Amino acid sequence: MHGSQLRVAYQGVPGAYSEAAAGKAYPKCEAIPCDQFEVAFQAVELWIADRAVLPVENSLGGSIHRNYDLLLRHRLHIVGEVQLPVHHCLMALPGVRKEYITRVISHPQALAQCEHTLTKLGLQAAREAVDDTAGAAEYIAANNLRDTAAIASARAAELYGMQILADGIQDDCGNVTRFVMLAREPIIPRTDRPFKTSIVFAHDKGTSVLFKVLSAFAFRNINLTKIESRPHRNRPIRLVDDANVGTAKHFEYLFYVDFEASMAEVRAQNALAEVQEFASFLRVLGSYPMDMTPWSPSGGD
Amino acid sequence: MHGSQLRVAYQGVPGAYSEAAAGKAYPKCEAIPCDQFEVAFQAVELWIADRAVLPVENSLGGSIHRNYDLLLRHRLHIVGEVQLPVHHCLMALPGVRKEYITRVISHPQALAQCEHTLTKLGLQAAREAVDDTAGAAEYIAANNLRDTAAIASARAAELYGMQILADGIQDDCGNVTRFVMLAREPIIPRTDRPFKTSIVFAHDKGTSVLFKVLSAFAFRNINLTKIESRPHRNRPIRLVDDANVGTAKHFEYLFYVDFEASMAEVRAQNALAEVQEFASFLRVLGSYPMDMTPWSPSGGD
Repeated sequence: MHGSQLRVAYQGVPGAYSEAAAGKAYPKCEAIPCDQFEVAFQAVELWIADRAVLPVENSLGGSIHRNYDLLLRHRLHIVGEVQLPVHHCLMALPGVRKEYITRVISHPQALAQCEHTLTKLGLQAAREAVDDTAGAAEYIAANNLRDTAAIASARAAELYGMQILADGIQDDCGNVTRFVMLAREPIIPRTDRPFKTSIVFAHDKGTSVLFKVLSAFAFRNINLTKIESRPHRNRPIRLVDDANVGTAKHFEYLFYVDFEASMAEVRAQNALAEVQEFASFLRVLGSYPMDMTPWSPSGGD
Repeated sequence: MHGSQLRVAYQGVPGAYSEAAAGKAYPKCEAIPCDQFEVAFQAVELWIADRAVLPVENSLGGSIHRNYDLLLRHRLHIVGEVQLPVHHCLMALPGVRKEYITRVISHPQALAQCEHTLTKLGLQAAREAVDDTAGAAEYIAANNLRDTAAIASARAAELYGMQILADGIQDDCGNVTRFVMLAREPIIPRTDRPFKTSIVFAHDKGTSVLFKVLSAFAFRNINLTKIESRPHRNRPIRLVDDANVGTAKHFEYLFYVDFEASMAEVRAQNALAEVQEFASFLRVLGSYPMDMTPWSPSGGD
């Protein structure tokens, strides 16, 4: 799994958190920047890359529905997951002191995530939103802006020759993003280590179906690590499943469920057979080794 | 409920989608712009405003966990909901033609939501991210930029004297944001029209509790319109409940559930009594009239 020649597509520029996730998942990989998430999918589908990393949820921002849409519209398989703490640094060009800074630029989410800390640091500088965190560092370096600081990763500081003025400036130390790794082929699920399986299902007959579906897991003592409903009223979704390619379907609800079992286990197979009975649509996004590292490696709280 | 003198706090500048939500919820209200979500909460708590409107989920972006955090950290009550289709317009100063535009500015989410349509319109102009949609229109007007277009609401175009070049340019017509309205006092739940109740609960004893909680609703034929798990491992949360003010607690999971029943109904009261038995934390965020308008008033498909 941790191949040395793997090409891994990610969204963003070098120094992006997605690149760090790629590096955590595949330590010696060649990370390939893509300007959009969909381009990262296409890179794998067209054999330009072997894997893609995709953020699917953040502990503050929630699930990224748009990226679940991409999972449903494409045929790639989840083959792993990594959880990455978001560790923001304040950075400027070498020699620039905090007092000189009149502007802080970053992705709007990153600016919001550091608001209190910036104020505590005495930085009353104007905040300005740009497209991405690493891109902010790159922009300052490229334009030699000595009055501007960026919020980005330590890796971005290193790549663009920036100096870190303050480290770990996120207001909430429990800020973690969960990424999944995608491949053209599923991996063979095993039972010799903890696996997780991600499914999406839909029904249009009221929420009693949800209860039946959950009982399929509860009665088999299978823990759920994620459950989320997503309203789909009046909205068709283009789905790829085994029987229908790109069919537009209407559902009242879609559900995302992650459960702690490998598809190699009979109880997981039986549970899914039961889910299939009640659901009008079911897709297994992947069965993959769990990321067992704790959620807050930066020291908890 | 639709008072004519109500002061309603929202995050953003005039022309923001939150302002439109305030106007949909309280047609003759005085909308009060706030630069942050937390400021909108404080405005109500300090009697500067009577209500606040808060986006809690978007059909593409998912639940906004950060705003659920604010709900848990403050004592305001949900007294209503509105669903607002996100209807983006491309706008420029009067007389500016599409061919002159070298730059399109807006909130990064709005830029992403219109990417395909912009390309179809032949706009190869640079995209530039700014803090908010209405703010982009305001900025162009204030600086008389004749080479720049903004993506914002029709109302923003009107307010800042911009001309709409293209209407409804969002790629996905099912893009809807759900807002809740907040007040210092809860409303008295009724049974003469459809009500919805929002709760948050937590437990730390595995997901079998979730199954028990859902059975409390399923056996009483109470439909759920939302269920979402939120991992909280290693992460304390400051909570306000009746017994504990601002206590930091550790939970493995938090759950958000919305169900279709009024707290005036005995079945809802019984269901919650049962939930309380199994959960280690329970808070009713509010019981309020459902927004019955369809999700895609722009015509759906």
